[in-house]
Parts: sequence; C-alpha cells; structure tokens
Amino acid sequence: MYIHVNSHDLLEGLNYVTRAIAPRPAKPVLEGVLFETTETGAFLTCTDGTLTIRTEIEAQVEKAGQTVLPGKLLTELVRKLPQGVVDINVNEKNIAIIKCISSRTSLTCMAPIDFPLMQVLENGQLVNLPQNIFREMIQKVIFAIATDESRQILTGCLLEVTPGEARLVGLDGFRLALQRYSDTFVLPDETTKLQAVIPGKVLSEMSKILSDDESPIEFTFDKTRLFAKFGKTCISSVLLAGEYINYKQILPTDWKTRVKVNRNELNDAIDRASLMAREGKNNLIKLHITSNDMTLSSNAELGDMQETIAIQIEGGEMDIAFNARYLSDVIRNISDEELCMRFNSNVSPCVICPSEGEKFTYLVLPVRVF
Amino acid sequence: MYIHVNSHDLLEGLNYVTRAIAPRPAKPVLEGVLFETTETGAFLTCTDGTLTIRTEIEAQVEKAGQTVLPGKLLTELVRKLPQGVVDINVNEKNIAIIKCISSRTSLTCMAPIDFPLMQVLENGQLVNLPQNIFREMIQKVIFAIATDESRQILTGCLLEVTPGEARLVGLDGFRLALQRYSDTFVLPDETTKLQAVIPGKVLSEMSKILSDDESPIEFTFDKTRLFAKFGKTCISSVLLAGEYINYKQILPTDWKTRVKVNRNELNDAIDRASLMAREGKNNLIKLHITSNDMTLSSNAELGDMQETIAIQIEGGEMDIAFNARYLSDVIRNISDEELCMRFNSNVSPCVICPSEGEKFTYLVLPVRVF
Repeated sequence: MYIHVNSHDLLEGLNYVTRAIAPRPAKPVLEGVLFETTETGAFLTCTDGTLTIRTEIEAQVEKAGQTVLPGKLLTELVRKLPQGVVDINVNEKNIAIIKCISSRTSLTCMAPIDFPLMQVLENGQLVNLPQNIFREMIQKVIFAIATDESRQILTGCLLEVTPGEARLVGLDGFRLALQRYSDTFVLPDETTKLQAVIPGKVLSEMSKILSDDESPIEFTFDKTRLFAKFGKTCISSVLLAGEYINYKQILPTDWKTRVKVNRNELNDAIDRASLMAREGKNNLIKLHITSNDMTLSSNAELGDMQETIAIQIEGGEMDIAFNARYLSDVIRNISDEELCMRFNSNVSPCVICPSEGEKFTYLVLPVRVF
Repeated sequence: MYIHVNSHDLLEGLNYVTRAIAPRPAKPVLEGVLFETTETGAFLTCTDGTLTIRTEIEAQVEKAGQTVLPGKLLTELVRKLPQGVVDINVNEKNIAIIKCISSRTSLTCMAPIDFPLMQVLENGQLVNLPQNIFREMIQKVIFAIATDESRQILTGCLLEVTPGEARLVGLDGFRLALQRYSDTFVLPDETTKLQAVIPGKVLSEMSKILSDDESPIEFTFDKTRLFAKFGKTCISSVLLAGEYINYKQILPTDWKTRVKVNRNELNDAIDRASLMAREGKNNLIKLHITSNDMTLSSNAELGDMQETIAIQIEGGEMDIAFNARYLSDVIRNISDEELCMRFNSNVSPCVICPSEGEKFTYLVLPVRVF
C-alpha cells in the first residue's frame, strides 16, 4: 500500500475511528487501525470487538492495499505533524514508512487478515434521524443510565420508534430520562414499534462524532445488531439483549402539586445547596414548597444553606427531599427557560417536564426523610 | 464581626489566600481562612504552617472583629454566588450567617486565637523585582528542581542577588535552569551577595498570583525566612536551610561544537521524536549533528522516527543522546526565536543558551550510549 494523504484529513479520520479502540485491547491487532485503499482514498476502521467505527478519507492511491497500523501512536504522531501531505508507504518487509516534510517514521505493520470484518447490515429495519437531534437526545439521556453491570440492560438506552415519534430512554432505578422527537417514521405497519437497546458506550462515542447539523444518520437494525451511517462514517455494534423495563408503567400520569420555575434560578440554587449537601452524610437537598415560593435547604455538621426562589404553584404545599446529584443531573440537562415539577406525595417520584409540550420527561425518586 | 463585601472582591481574595491551605491540614484551624476587619475592609489569611498568604479586600465594616471560616467551602460557595453584595455576620453563638440575594448560608466559625500569627519581617535585606519578570523567571526555572525529598535543598530554587543582577537557579542533578535579570540592586556593599533558597511550592503558588505587569514585588529576607509584598497581598515563608550547590562550578565555560537552531523547529521535532522514545525502554533521543543539519532519532520495538532540521554549526560533528523529557522541558521553556546548543563531548553536559546575550542558561546531562 502506498498513499498520499493530507495530514488534516488523516487526523480527522483517525480521531473518528480510534474512539472504538478499547483501553486495554484483548489482542494486539485491536490496538490497530485498518487501512484499506479505495479508488479515491482509504477506509480507516477500528474495533473493540463489539463496537466498530469505519470512515473514509480522501487520498491519492499510488499502490492499492491493506495494512494495520498502531492506532493511538499513529494518531499522536499525525496530530503533531505540520500541515501538509503525508506519505504512507508499506514496503515488502511489512514496514510502513510515514513521511511528512522533514519527519520520517517507520512502523511495523500488523496483518490485516487478523482484523475482524465489519458486519454491514443490509436487510433490517430502517430509521433516519437528523444528526444534531440524535446527538442532543443522547447527551440529555445518557447520564441516567446504570453504571454497574449487575443489570446489564440498564447500561444502555432504549431507542423506541413508532410511526410518529422516536424516543430515547435511560434509567437506573433511581431516575429516568426520556427525550422525544416527533417525525414520520416508515415502519412495516402502524402498530409496529421498533425497540433497540443500544450500549451506553456506543451512544457516548457516537455523540462525540455526530455533526451538529441536520444531515441524517441512517440506522439499520436487526434483532441483535445496529448499523449506522452518517456522512462518510459508519458504525456497527451489538445491541444489549433482554427485555427493557416497561418504563411507561413507571411514569405517573396524575399529579397533586405542580410547580413552574425558572430553569437558571433553580439550577444555581441546586448548585449552591449541593455544596453543603456534599459536606453532609446523605447528599440531601430538601424542598419546602409553599404557595409563594420554594426553599431548597441542605445541612451538614459545618452549617446549613437555604435558597429561596419564586415559583408558580397549582395544588397543595409539599415537603420532599432528593439526592442532590440526581436533581442537579436533571436540571443541568434542561435548556428550556422554564420547567415544570409535578408531585404526588413526598414518597412518590417527581416528574420534571417542559412547561409546555412533552419534548422531555425526567423522573427522580425522592428520599424518605419526613 | 459584620461586613458587607462585593462577591467578586471576596472571591478574588479567597482565590489568592486559599492557595496556602495544605491538601491535608495538620489541624482543623488550618483548613480555615482568617478574617480580620480593618477600617476599610478585611485581611484574609491562610497558612499551612510554612507558607502564609494574606491579602486585603475592600469591605464595609458594620462591626469590627475576627473569625475563621472553612476556606475551601467558602471559596466554592462564593464562586457560585451571583454578582452582588455578600453580608457576613458572625453572631454571639459564633455562627456566621452569609447572605447574598436569596441565598443564605450558616457556617460554624473556628476560634481566631488558634490561628497562627503571620510573621512579618521588618529588618532584613530588601530586594525589589518587577512582578512579571519574577513570574517568568519562576515559570522557566521551576521544572528543573528535584521532586524527591532526599536532597531537600534541591526542591527549592536559589535566588541570588548581586549589585547588578538577580538570578534564579533550579537543578536536580540531571539538568540545571538559570534565569538572569539585570538591574541595580542596593546591597550593603559591592561584594555582598544575597542568597536564599525558596521552597518550590512557595514559588509555584507565587507564580500563580503575581500580576503580569511591572508593579514591584518587595522581598525582605533574613537568614531563615522571606517576606514578600505585592499589591494588597503579602506572603511569608521559611527558606530551605543548608548550603546550595555551587552551580557556577558545573557550568562549562568552553565548547567544541556550537549549533544555532530555530526554536520552533527543534521543539516540534523533539515533540514528535518523543512519541517513539516513550514507546522505547529508555525514553532516549539521539542527536546526529553534521555540518549541514541535525537529525534527531528515537526508536522502539514498534519502529523508529527521524527528524531532520537545518542548523548553523561551528566546530566539529557530534553524536550525543538525551533523555527526551529533559530536552523537551528545556526547549518548551525558551521563547526566543533562535537558540544555541553548546557541546564539548558526548559524555559532558550540553549548554542551551540564547544565540545572543545570556538571559538564560540551561544545562542537560547526556546519556551514554555511544
């Protein structure tokens, strides 16, 4: 293989695909990036065995071929190269000579035959979403997934698509995050619902390489895998196996007290009250809701804090307590100017949603202290 | 004590003084910041027992007094407060009530009587330096000091002042960094030389709070302590005891090969060659200097790298090897466009200095590989 490639293009491609390299790869070839020349450039591919990322870069191909180069080291090198043309020439001894202006590196290549094949899904259920929308949905849901592997299905997010709506759900037993996007989706029939549980790590890496414009990401799903294409990049991953929790059963439909509050005021108040909550043993913030205002309070041996903010209330007064981090995780991820908190009692979950519409629904379990 | 203070002023003051709080204070009161009201404001003071930092902030004093508040927690709180006036009111139960708009915090105060007194030096040797100059001297020398405590004197920098020059020196046995600043200094007589070994930690914290203008920092030294004033802030610290190494004996005065090289080209080449050096066992970069150019090379099991840069040479050719980090630490800290490397042999130290003048001198020991 012998190619000429612009250092900037090469770096961009490497930055995309090397996200799939595991921190401690199971075998040496998985530390590598697979180069495969095409007519107008090269495919770069990395995989950890579960997640595979491939992208295409433009290049001038002198001699077609395939090779596997050490991924992290190559990326670091290319990041430090000057702007200009990089020559990558693999000789008959399987040594790649990488030249750029006055810099010359030789690297021992690995055998492309050992590199796992990317599994392309062609006959599956199709779903298209704008990249910026899907990226935002991920960012606003992923914090709520479980981190421990004891209930593996909860370490992923449920993507649920009906003819009129796509939903992304994450939950860990203490809180739930749900983002909705309304659009027309073509499914086999109107009663069909696509459901796929995508691993959290895969979504997290996707959110970092999706673009912030409306160009589409095209998903293909079968029962066990997903394949996604966006721009010149594609991703393949296993799905998490098993039945996801019936999250709709958990969402309260009714409420006894509803509070409208300014998002920034609430966020700042939680931010400060969290300081003292963290000093305390339970990381607790108490909410005292009256017809005039809401007081957030926290305490520790060192002292206590109280924050008072204006609210609009419907329904009765309420005293309820939350884990400070669970509350702050939710409010931080809301970008609306105003939000709504709905309560039934101080031992049942609080729903946090927009003051109008239902673009998102968050749910936080309270802590019993009263 | 009861004061009103602007939240921005309070935060700035706290950011200065809390640098003196130890990561794990030896007694609870050393986690605190001492407030002492003055006619127009308050002194804030923190100390770790060795280093003390005090600054003055403007405040409206309703009731004079002293108190000690938890330093880190207060700083975090004030950082999160909105712009505005903060009231700090210590009641008869020794509880401070801190109010700002709709935020109210109560904190248990510690007793000011337990707080160590700041030792002000009044009769000592005086030295004045511009803050920006001293800050730059610290930043360009401190990397070379020893980090292990086995030779404690080398964990500090030597400040040496003669009637015409101030010098700051750091060394760890493998490399030496020396910065010079020419000015007139008033010393008791022309043969006098002021020498003080300032702890590295003290210099490092100073470099973060010195301003980047020419306003002076005024030092007072006695045999065991330093006291420094700049703006509204003062610092007191012990000096390191013992005899500093006679660094002048180490500096070669002669050379057999001298090379002039562009700083950025050399820095980039070292940066890239360091990648492969790090993969190798010895973190080595070899220099091959000929009458035309200099080739830097490094190698590992994975492969090797070569960088070639243009030089101007006086004297003979040279092959010499260095620890990549020692070389890179020095070149990163040089801001001149061009620099000079002087060699005697491949087993004797290399001197790195400006191509004109002697504002700085660095010295790096080579590694024997030839």
